[in-house]
Amino acid sequence: MRFAGSHNSMQDAGKRDAGARAADLVRDGTVLGLGTGSTVFFAVERLRSRIAEGLDLVAVPTSYQAAMRAREAGIPLTTLDEHPEVDATIDGADQVDGCLRLIKGRGAAHTREKCVAAASARLFIAVDPSKMVGVLTGPIPVEVLPFACKPVMARIAGLGGEGVLREGLRKDGPVITDNGNFVLDARFGAISDPEHLEAAIEAIPGVVAAGLFTGFTERTTVLVGEKDGVRILGRQPGL
Amino acid sequence: MRFAGSHNSMQDAGKRDAGARAADLVRDGTVLGLGTGSTVFFAVERLRSRIAEGLDLVAVPTSYQAAMRAREAGIPLTTLDEHPEVDATIDGADQVDGCLRLIKGRGAAHTREKCVAAASARLFIAVDPSKMVGVLTGPIPVEVLPFACKPVMARIAGLGGEGVLREGLRKDGPVITDNGNFVLDARFGAISDPEHLEAAIEAIPGVVAAGLFTGFTERTTVLVGEKDGVRILGRQPGL
Repeated sequence: MRFAGSHNSMQDAGKRDAGARAADLVRDGTVLGLGTGSTVFFAVERLRSRIAEGLDLVAVPTSYQAAMRAREAGIPLTTLDEHPEVDATIDGADQVDGCLRLIKGRGAAHTREKCVAAASARLFIAVDPSKMVGVLTGPIPVEVLPFACKPVMARIAGLGGEGVLREGLRKDGPVITDNGNFVLDARFGAISDPEHLEAAIEAIPGVVAAGLFTGFTERTTVLVGEKDGVRILGRQPGL
Repeated sequence: MRFAGSHNSMQDAGKRDAGARAADLVRDGTVLGLGTGSTVFFAVERLRSRIAEGLDLVAVPTSYQAAMRAREAGIPLTTLDEHPEVDATIDGADQVDGCLRLIKGRGAAHTREKCVAAASARLFIAVDPSKMVGVLTGPIPVEVLPFACKPVMARIAGLGGEGVLREGLRKDGPVITDNGNFVLDARFGAISDPEHLEAAIEAIPGVVAAGLFTGFTERTTVLVGEKDGVRILGRQPGL
């Protein structure tokens, strides 16, 4: 049972407003990276309307989910093979700190999201206010080769964290990513040096990508769906 | 047509001697990482004999090929899940420099080889003399997610290299690794700072592992099958 004004509907309103606002930033002729998750859903819905009004774009999806939603909304799809340079990406995040560093991967899509972010000139991160934090605390999703799961867990412990294999729901055993790998959720408590930790985790053999995104802050605009409007952080949308 | 003393049979003799010598270093009760490729084949053949004489070991294979060969030779297999700490690994290399830094991956197995090397206390690298170089020159095999192939090629170009997608033989289109990914062969010419280049390539989103191995030199013993015997470089086998 949900009530108007409850925590969840407030969150949903924030996501909807932020996602829609991100979609409004998309210019005609854009090659658009399309993230994964509930906030991007609202962006896709707005893009559906804008396409009906004549907006021209092609989208690089970051997951099967993103591709299916885009197709359903009538957004033409492309790939990083066709468009290795992406104009802008709309995505969500699990946590955003004051320096616009991100934790992503609750949906197990962070590896492809990172590939697309790295290929993108601009990054529009749409979130509800609950995602804004003073200090990133994780857990950090880490995509790993199934082959190396145990030694990677040991190495994460060596870095002071604890990695737990993510179990599936509606699927027995571990979650399998769109790339065919496992996800460890790695808890480190408060993360004092995210850049260092991201590099240290990604240097472990068997790690495909960590859900810490510290290298994109200069190209990032964060859109926070507040109660009284969408707050804009970081790089200004028009520039 | 081959002649005794020709280049290829000399190489084969070097590989055979080095591989067999590496196998002779294996102690009773060892958890042994088993690399991939032609030199390891000779180690496996020697291990087959030693097992017949009573040697007790279990092996962590680094590829389907390594597993099949080990099984055929009667070597009991295990996994990094069972044994996240490996006592020693026998492997080959495409190039070895004077600091015992390696280039690996001609057989497209370098990602799992790197996972096992990282889990191993000791690394026995068996090569013929043609693999010893003053300066590593590559090409460097780079395992990449198919999703991100093109932008990774662009980023390798940004590092001053040229990445070429490895095409299959006996298979149309690109080689697919045991992990389901592509391989780029990245040429940089003479590699002046292998540590830096390894880190830079592996920091590219979409890269699973680069075939540059610079972090294992202190645990490494290189066995070179020379004409007049096996030369030992690096850490002494007994220690």
